[in-house]
Amino acid sequence: MSQLTGIAASNGIAIAKAYKLAIPDLSFDKKKVDDTTSEIERLTKALEVSKSELEKIKEHARTSLGDEHAEIFSAHLLVLGDPELINPIKDKIESEQVNAEFALDETAQMFIDMFENMDNEYMRERAADIKDVTKRVMAHLLEVSFPNPALIDEEVIVIAEDLTPSDTAQLNKQFVQGFTTNIGGRTSHSAIMARSLEIPAVVGTKTITEQAKEGDILIVDGIDGAVIINPTEDEVQEYRKKQEDFEKQKQEWAKLKDEPTVSKDGTHVELVANIGTPNDVEGIINNGGEGVGLYRTEFLYMGKNELPTEDEQFDAYKSVLEQMGDKPVVVRTLDIGGDKELPYLELPDEMNPFLGYRAIRLCLERDDIFRTQLRALLRASTYGNLKIMFPMIATLDEFRQAKAILLEEKENLTNEGTEVSENIEVGIMVEIPSTAVIARQFAKEVDFFSIGTNDLIQYTLAADRMNERVSYLYQPYHPAILNLVNNVIEAAHAEGKWAGMCGEMAGDSIAIPILLGLGLDEFSMSATSILPARTQIKDLSKEELASYKDQLLSMDTADEVEAFVREKTNQ
Amino acid sequence: MSQLTGIAASNGIAIAKAYKLAIPDLSFDKKKVDDTTSEIERLTKALEVSKSELEKIKEHARTSLGDEHAEIFSAHLLVLGDPELINPIKDKIESEQVNAEFALDETAQMFIDMFENMDNEYMRERAADIKDVTKRVMAHLLEVSFPNPALIDEEVIVIAEDLTPSDTAQLNKQFVQGFTTNIGGRTSHSAIMARSLEIPAVVGTKTITEQAKEGDILIVDGIDGAVIINPTEDEVQEYRKKQEDFEKQKQEWAKLKDEPTVSKDGTHVELVANIGTPNDVEGIINNGGEGVGLYRTEFLYMGKNELPTEDEQFDAYKSVLEQMGDKPVVVRTLDIGGDKELPYLELPDEMNPFLGYRAIRLCLERDDIFRTQLRALLRASTYGNLKIMFPMIATLDEFRQAKAILLEEKENLTNEGTEVSENIEVGIMVEIPSTAVIARQFAKEVDFFSIGTNDLIQYTLAADRMNERVSYLYQPYHPAILNLVNNVIEAAHAEGKWAGMCGEMAGDSIAIPILLGLGLDEFSMSATSILPARTQIKDLSKEELASYKDQLLSMDTADEVEAFVREKTNQ
Repeated sequence: MSQLTGIAASNGIAIAKAYKLAIPDLSFDKKKVDDTTSEIERLTKALEVSKSELEKIKEHARTSLGDEHAEIFSAHLLVLGDPELINPIKDKIESEQVNAEFALDETAQMFIDMFENMDNEYMRERAADIKDVTKRVMAHLLEVSFPNPALIDEEVIVIAEDLTPSDTAQLNKQFVQGFTTNIGGRTSHSAIMARSLEIPAVVGTKTITEQAKEGDILIVDGIDGAVIINPTEDEVQEYRKKQEDFEKQKQEWAKLKDEPTVSKDGTHVELVANIGTPNDVEGIINNGGEGVGLYRTEFLYMGKNELPTEDEQFDAYKSVLEQMGDKPVVVRTLDIGGDKELPYLELPDEMNPFLGYRAIRLCLERDDIFRTQLRALLRASTYGNLKIMFPMIATLDEFRQAKAILLEEKENLTNEGTEVSENIEVGIMVEIPSTAVIARQFAKEVDFFSIGTNDLIQYTLAADRMNERVSYLYQPYHPAILNLVNNVIEAAHAEGKWAGMCGEMAGDSIAIPILLGLGLDEFSMSATSILPARTQIKDLSKEELASYKDQLLSMDTADEVEAFVREKTNQ
Repeated sequence: MSQLTGIAASNGIAIAKAYKLAIPDLSFDKKKVDDTTSEIERLTKALEVSKSELEKIKEHARTSLGDEHAEIFSAHLLVLGDPELINPIKDKIESEQVNAEFALDETAQMFIDMFENMDNEYMRERAADIKDVTKRVMAHLLEVSFPNPALIDEEVIVIAEDLTPSDTAQLNKQFVQGFTTNIGGRTSHSAIMARSLEIPAVVGTKTITEQAKEGDILIVDGIDGAVIINPTEDEVQEYRKKQEDFEKQKQEWAKLKDEPTVSKDGTHVELVANIGTPNDVEGIINNGGEGVGLYRTEFLYMGKNELPTEDEQFDAYKSVLEQMGDKPVVVRTLDIGGDKELPYLELPDEMNPFLGYRAIRLCLERDDIFRTQLRALLRASTYGNLKIMFPMIATLDEFRQAKAILLEEKENLTNEGTEVSENIEVGIMVEIPSTAVIARQFAKEVDFFSIGTNDLIQYTLAADRMNERVSYLYQPYHPAILNLVNNVIEAAHAEGKWAGMCGEMAGDSIAIPILLGLGLDEFSMSATSILPARTQIKDLSKEELASYKDQLLSMDTADEVEAFVREKTNQ
């Protein structure tokens, strides 16, 4: 056996055999073919098998993950059925008397080159679709197996270099016991998805795909970030025990499901969840969440060829609000741009997309898009307890402009005779350092703050959290981050407003005691982190933690902060 | 006549005819050639003319701008003389009986494609060289004129989409009266270069290359950011007057050349300059600078194929220190990476280079590079008043590590018997928000701060200053920036240290009164800004400005700050 360490990305223990998610060798030789008719038949068959596979995958994605996730496979099916692509392949086989592999590769490559060289993000996405589909058809021509995570029908642990959103969209929780990857961190897409699916995961192991082979037995320890390859019987026993303990602990946690979140000395804080689609609400309810702290609306805009209509959006917002009843639902308006692109918007390529044209910056310029979303939100507002927040606010002017547009649309709706709630709180994400620094000025005008630590940390430390070479600078406990967070909370309270946090930091067991001590009112996290957090807070004294404030804010380094908190809270 | 407005990038008024810096139409037809011998002769001649042009340009760049700037043309000459490139062109003419244009284009394109597709920045730079040189040779084959800004020999105003560093390297101040571009801002390369050359410039006019044609008479007003195309006689008179007034004002400024910088109420501050090479020292002395506030050492590393040796660096540092005598010289250690690449280091491509692996992050990992620079600095330290500062410090750990390496090398040199100054101050750039926020912690360990506002503003507002779509968020007067600057100054003074500023903001006439009031000790700017700044400060009362501090720090927006300062200082 051998053991690898990585980053614990999603809680729990999984023991199962390895399923390697890797593209097989698709190399081939160019061959002269005399019987072109049967060669074309061979191609047709490979196309048909690919098509029926993709239909199964799409259906699976639709039922287990929702419509948005299934869209990517509709695009793939379109490619497979496109005569503009398929006929030239057949022609080539016939006229040049070559094998199907060669004809497929040459023709597809021509289209890929053409689309990739267009200065148009939408066409480049089409090039990516053709690439994906071509690989699948090629695998069938060569009769090598092509990985279809959606079709896994036995218990496995998926291992891969990394998992793309389209890979994770295919995973079936019933069979996929866990996964482990070479790259990624706690805030990478695959890690967030693992927590949302409640699958144990260890990411960033660097070499798991080299160390483990298909069929090896693996233990994935998502609690401590370890992966064991071909464990001894003793180790299996040990981890079965750890798995049972974890299940027991989950049952303990579950007892707090319907309890409020109260510290040892009686302070109530709100534990709420981050969601991406109406389907995620079930997870909040199962995990005893007290509301939605961050509804990321980007999913409505992704995986399709055009902007969502006002009615499509209204349906989604209404569904979430109705499901949550009178519990608060904080909806973040569109945060697109940066690493999240919408092909049909044709956003320009930027040298530093994280410092670029995105979120509120885009919405204030493209106010057609913004107004449609605001109207949908306002119309849905009567179905629950809606709060609206604007992302990437860097100046008070931006907030004032965004709020003015909201009020305009509210007035328009009222004039049209549509009912709109009169109690919608309007707040902002605090994720840009400038806003954290002058929170005092903002607090006079906003109804609430929600601190978005994922971005706030990367801007404050000037380190791209997706960039492996500088990810060591992504330091949630850096005293500068604590000072900014404290500044935001104090500013809010001075004006009688509330302050929440919706970054990964809000669910972190070292950060929770610090944030409780600083007076944070609302903690928004993955649904599965809520019960462990509630359990932790029950045993913490807010007064004691508050007494460490000045000491923590004056510390030199993140390590010093972490060591101090570990000591004081026995972690 | 018509008038365009843009960004005033470099002071002064220029009136002259337009010289358009644009690549001519280089399209051609493929032709069959019977007399291949004379076709090859035609090619040889075009190569020879190109070569003699490039030699002239190189010589010109060397004398007027220094060796580093001339290096780019050495690379171009190497390409022109490379038989690996030239022989295949000749072979193609002969064997395929095609015209020289076609043979040149096909062959060059093959090399360009090959080099561009290599995952190697150095080879991609070579591809860019081949592209440049091919265009020049093609222009001679087609007998169309190719712009050679270095060879301009009459008074002109250069107009262009943008000016690259290699374009500006060619400009001869004697003939180029000013320039104006479609894109760029006050901190773009071309703007900084214009101030260093003391040429009036207006950038960011959006459409000057469309509105003006070659030979049109232009007025470039670098004071107020206007460009007038084909002015009336009255306008010419008016601007001649403005030009004379400006010259008179410069003479007024010059009277303060040997005076210290003292406010109306007797506070002395230091006005020092930003430089890139030892050649720039002359400008400081001519403009009455009290020292070097920022010596950017990157130029030593650029435009060559390998790292500079310890001795090469020693010579440069020694030259600057000796020229400055006992005046302070603050040298910033290598800040490479981000938008400043070194081909021979083969840095990885990054999604967000401004948030990536650069400056001290790179130096701490590649400490071989760092130690060579520190040794060169330490050896030079006995020749003047050296201060060393580290760029892009985000955590105290980084500063401690960098300082430890410096002390190690100092000990090594002492052990080797080399004399090293005992009075070298060691400080940091404050250009990352985290460092500005916990300046109090840093102030205990550093000898000084130098606030790098160009980066600090872009990180604090999360807006890439080079990205036109978000450059409106590059707001030096944003109250958050003022709060961070104030925090840094207060932290320094609390520990008896000094605080300077070396971003463009330090030379800005709205920022100067604010910074004086906040207690900034040292202002580092373009040499040509020193005398106007000294003149301005002579008339300001520090006590009065300090009394506005709380008011300024509590303001809502940058516009409010600017309006307030304009009113209080009659601007």
